[in-house]
Amino acid sequence: MSEAAQTLDGWYCLHDFRTIDWTVWKMLTSDERQAAIHEFQGLLEKWDVKDREKQGSHALYTVVGQKADFMMMILRPTMEELSEIELEFNKTKLAEYTIPAFSYVSVVELSNYLPGGEDPYQNPQVLARLYPSLPKAKHVCFYPMDKRRQGADNWYMLPMEDRKTMMRSHGMIGRQYAGKVKQIITGSVGFDDYEWGVTLFADDVLQFKKLVYEMRFDEVSARFGEFGSFFVGNLLNPDKVYSFLHV
Amino acid sequence: MSEAAQTLDGWYCLHDFRTIDWTVWKMLTSDERQAAIHEFQGLLEKWDVKDREKQGSHALYTVVGQKADFMMMILRPTMEELSEIELEFNKTKLAEYTIPAFSYVSVVELSNYLPGGEDPYQNPQVLARLYPSLPKAKHVCFYPMDKRRQGADNWYMLPMEDRKTMMRSHGMIGRQYAGKVKQIITGSVGFDDYEWGVTLFADDVLQFKKLVYEMRFDEVSARFGEFGSFFVGNLLNPDKVYSFLHV
Amino acid sequence: MSEAAQTLDGWYCLHDFRTIDWTVWKMLTSDERQAAIHEFQGLLEKWDVKDREKQGSHALYTVVGQKADFMMMILRPTMEELSEIELEFNKTKLAEYTIPAFSYVSVVELSNYLPGGEDPYQNPQVLARLYPSLPKAKHVCFYPMDKRRQGADNWYMLPMEDRKTMMRSHGMIGRQYAGKVKQIITGSVGFDDYEWGVTLFADDVLQFKKLVYEMRFDEVSARFGEFGSFFVGNLLNPDKVYSFLHV
Amino acid sequence: MSEAAQTLDGWYCLHDFRTIDWTVWKMLTSDERQAAIHEFQGLLEKWDVKDREKQGSHALYTVVGQKADFMMMILRPTMEELSEIELEFNKTKLAEYTIPAFSYVSVVELSNYLPGGEDPYQNPQVLARLYPSLPKAKHVCFYPMDKRRQGADNWYMLPMEDRKTMMRSHGMIGRQYAGKVKQIITGSVGFDDYEWGVTLFADDVLQFKKLVYEMRFDEVSARFGEFGSFFVGNLLNPDKVYSFLHV
Amino acid sequence: MSEAAQTLDGWYCLHDFRTIDWTVWKMLTSDERQAAIHEFQGLLEKWDVKDREKQGSHALYTVVGQKADFMMMILRPTMEELSEIELEFNKTKLAEYTIPAFSYVSVVELSNYLPGGEDPYQNPQVLARLYPSLPKAKHVCFYPMDKRRQGADNWYMLPMEDRKTMMRSHGMIGRQYAGKVKQIITGSVGFDDYEWGVTLFADDVLQFKKLVYEMRFDEVSARFGEFGSFFVGNLLNPDKVYSFLHV
Repeated sequence: MSEAAQTLDGWYCLHDFRTIDWTVWKMLTSDERQAAIHEFQGLLEKWDVKDREKQGSHALYTVVGQKADFMMMILRPTMEELSEIELEFNKTKLAEYTIPAFSYVSVVELSNYLPGGEDPYQNPQVLARLYPSLPKAKHVCFYPMDKRRQGADNWYMLPMEDRKTMMRSHGMIGRQYAGKVKQIITGSVGFDDYEWGVTLFADDVLQFKKLVYEMRFDEVSARFGEFGSFFVGNLLNPDKVYSFLHV
Repeated sequence: MSEAAQTLDGWYCLHDFRTIDWTVWKMLTSDERQAAIHEFQGLLEKWDVKDREKQGSHALYTVVGQKADFMMMILRPTMEELSEIELEFNKTKLAEYTIPAFSYVSVVELSNYLPGGEDPYQNPQVLARLYPSLPKAKHVCFYPMDKRRQGADNWYMLPMEDRKTMMRSHGMIGRQYAGKVKQIITGSVGFDDYEWGVTLFADDVLQFKKLVYEMRFDEVSARFGEFGSFFVGNLLNPDKVYSFLHV
Repeated sequence: MSEAAQTLDGWYCLHDFRTIDWTVWKMLTSDERQAAIHEFQGLLEKWDVKDREKQGSHALYTVVGQKADFMMMILRPTMEELSEIELEFNKTKLAEYTIPAFSYVSVVELSNYLPGGEDPYQNPQVLARLYPSLPKAKHVCFYPMDKRRQGADNWYMLPMEDRKTMMRSHGMIGRQYAGKVKQIITGSVGFDDYEWGVTLFADDVLQFKKLVYEMRFDEVSARFGEFGSFFVGNLLNPDKVYSFLHV
Repeated sequence: MSEAAQTLDGWYCLHDFRTIDWTVWKMLTSDERQAAIHEFQGLLEKWDVKDREKQGSHALYTVVGQKADFMMMILRPTMEELSEIELEFNKTKLAEYTIPAFSYVSVVELSNYLPGGEDPYQNPQVLARLYPSLPKAKHVCFYPMDKRRQGADNWYMLPMEDRKTMMRSHGMIGRQYAGKVKQIITGSVGFDDYEWGVTLFADDVLQFKKLVYEMRFDEVSARFGEFGSFFVGNLLNPDKVYSFLHV
Repeated sequence: MSEAAQTLDGWYCLHDFRTIDWTVWKMLTSDERQAAIHEFQGLLEKWDVKDREKQGSHALYTVVGQKADFMMMILRPTMEELSEIELEFNKTKLAEYTIPAFSYVSVVELSNYLPGGEDPYQNPQVLARLYPSLPKAKHVCFYPMDKRRQGADNWYMLPMEDRKTMMRSHGMIGRQYAGKVKQIITGSVGFDDYEWGVTLFADDVLQFKKLVYEMRFDEVSARFGEFGSFFVGNLLNPDKVYSFLHV
């Protein structure tokens, strides 16, 4: 058996993608729609409190194309809180006019393919990454992924040393995008259908393409990356929620 | 032909995942919803009697994310009883407000990759595992899986001795989680689309990730594991059913 | 080119799986439901006449889990008769409350991987298998399958002699279940998405699992079997149709 | 780069499969249904004129099993005409009671893996095959297919000479079914998801199975054939349309 | 790590495929339909202004077969503008009568597998290709694609020099179709599920098939091309919108 990588795990994470059923949404009276938007904004404010109290974080983005209309990304200390938030949203008026499009359950993860001798839990930067405050970047990109286990390209059969070397070189690419792209890795083994979720934040949407494309030539992705669907979106500020939903 | 593994088989098992149609559920009057919840609670009480009489067992969990809203796991001595329970639920008022999301049909199974000389059916621990009382752990994890049959990675072409050795080492990992994760393996060859269902119970949901991830580096999973969808959820105690369904 | 196996072909076969829309079914008045059940029972009686006249055969089973609620398996001398039966069912009142879940079109097939010198069509046992009277066993199992054509595991590139040897050993496993499991193979090359359908009948549902699992270690399945969905169900006797549909 | 095969291309082709929504169809008054059937028969008569004028051809078949209820196959000189026919059908009353089940867009194709020295366009038989009058055979079989590009089994990397030899031997099998099965190959590279559509016509439905199964042992299919869904159906003569749709 | 190809990126691109729900569309009064068409034509006129001002471009095509009824292809300088256009369309009256069928998010891309020494951004032809005015060709063809990463056929593990040589030979085929087929490549790594979208325009629809088929024999496609769904359609001129939607 290969030596298993050790992981550091932070807040639990729910990505919740929804499509709006505009046809029935328009059937409401203006007052009813207003009330539904107001209720949703109340939810966002409650979430904001959690952000300010460092008891979690969240992000709200529209999604480009037909895969969904908007995406809520929620971080919380327990899986139960994720369930409660999902349940609370599902019981809102707005939820009646949305159709579930995709979701992903995971936990913020740092992989310990690090140089030895460090105790990552003593590292404030590590803690800041395990319990991150989600940025208000203009754009988001989300995709789930696996490490391949196929014939000669089986990540989980490689010696730890080889995986470490490859991950280090992989990490170097990411570091070149420091300041341009913020990357949050969440682990989902045992929680959802892929092994990881990758959430990228950037003010220049083109940087997502540049980063993911450059990484694809790296052996870790080229030989071992298996990717699910890609979602890309634009920041939906609370003050734009009304105009977004206005019909 | 390779020698087939012998299995011990216990209670039949139905995993039944449902999504709630909150929009139409809210259209009911409060009294109608109350009656529907009451009827469902009556069903749960009937199932509890079976649990106490050791004629079966069941578990009720919410599911995190959009794959489903809740999951019922039912164990019974015969396949007919599973059908009757499914039919009875389908005819309830609550069922009118749920949408089938996923189900899995299997039978509790112990695999006889054991040291020779033991007669497992004389073992009270074995019997307790074939006819288990499902725990009230805070979290559940379910996924179906196959053993791979692909080119050089064909589990079913391996000699019995090799499979035994690998399964023994695989079992060692599981044993390290004793007290943290309870694992119930159900066999589904001839009953459903994968060969096994794996149901894990734990009070610390992170242990699911640790266990499944560690196992993934073991040759049995790394080379031979093919996994279906993963579902993770939180315990739904009977006394929380009302608030869960309250709108 | 490898020598093609010769097949013997009997009655055409339709497996028709349906899910009941209980919510709308309950909206009918009791009289309307009674009339719909009565009409369906009339259909079953017409099919019974065909069975008695040896002009076909049929079976009716419930299905465990969410894949379907019941399954009709129909054998007839021509493809046109299958179409007519399907059309007649689709026009019934009951059909308005069912949702098509899955179907499979095939023809009863015996594969001529037999010792030479026999003329199978002179064999009354062979004829009984080509035009079988479906048993009233307590349980049914259905799955479609292909022979693999992948890299070095390509069934259709093997010499006839090798295929014959493997099929003979495969048949030996089946024979060990004589009296426990009745197996009907239907060929579907050119008719449906897999190459064969396998329908198993048994009074002890566990025998399905034992048979399919044991065969999986046999080279024919281990290296060359590709399987579709598995459906398992319980006998739905005509006298139980009423209680099954009663709400 | 391997030398590309040359193709001869004839009429454009649309296979259009539809499922009937019997429940809502029955909600119409008898007069409304009669009017809808009459309108559809008018469409069929217009298509018949095109057939007689050799400006196209069409076929109408029921489909066995749940994949669809009927299939329209339309041949026309331009892609625009296919669009117009599809649009005209979609605007009929009958179309309101059908659900799109599957479609396929292609063009009648002859592959030029022929002995050199022939100019196929001078050949009246070739022209008759590029602009065929669809037969009124009792049964139809349709499936789309690709030539495999996988590891060592990559059709498009083979030298022209090898492809020619294999296609010639493949064609020999087809020729043995002359008089029993009429085969129309349509090319769909750049038009739809597979590379070819295969439409077979026969009075004896069993010949579809025999032909496709025999070909599967031929290297072209065994090593290089990738198949989509198979549809099989029975001729729906215009004079049977009324009884088919009568409820 | 292999050297990553450099790309030049132009306008962002949304392909938006829609199916019309003719049944409910017909339920509108003639005046309501007229108003909905008028509103949509207003949208088209707004887009035309952008085209004329060189601030974007768009194309409108019907789609043959059941995959969709029409396709809007939109080019804009920012991802936000694509979102706004999508949102504006979704809020129109016409959108209530359409069902999302497929969409694709990408950015116009030129791949820098070019002879060295050129600075492509100084090249007016390059700029014209990054910010193209979409042609009014009679036909369109769209498909997404990946470069394969499978065993020995792993594009991203090849040395830059090999990729360059293959792409050059690949480009030669495309150039033979100059004047017959206009090709727009859009990159979608990090934006959507495939790595590229290919949109072809031609007055002779058969040229799509000839081009794609000829390329399939080229090593880049034969060994490394993985293709998604193919869509083919006919130009829908603004002046034909009314008759297209008229019922």
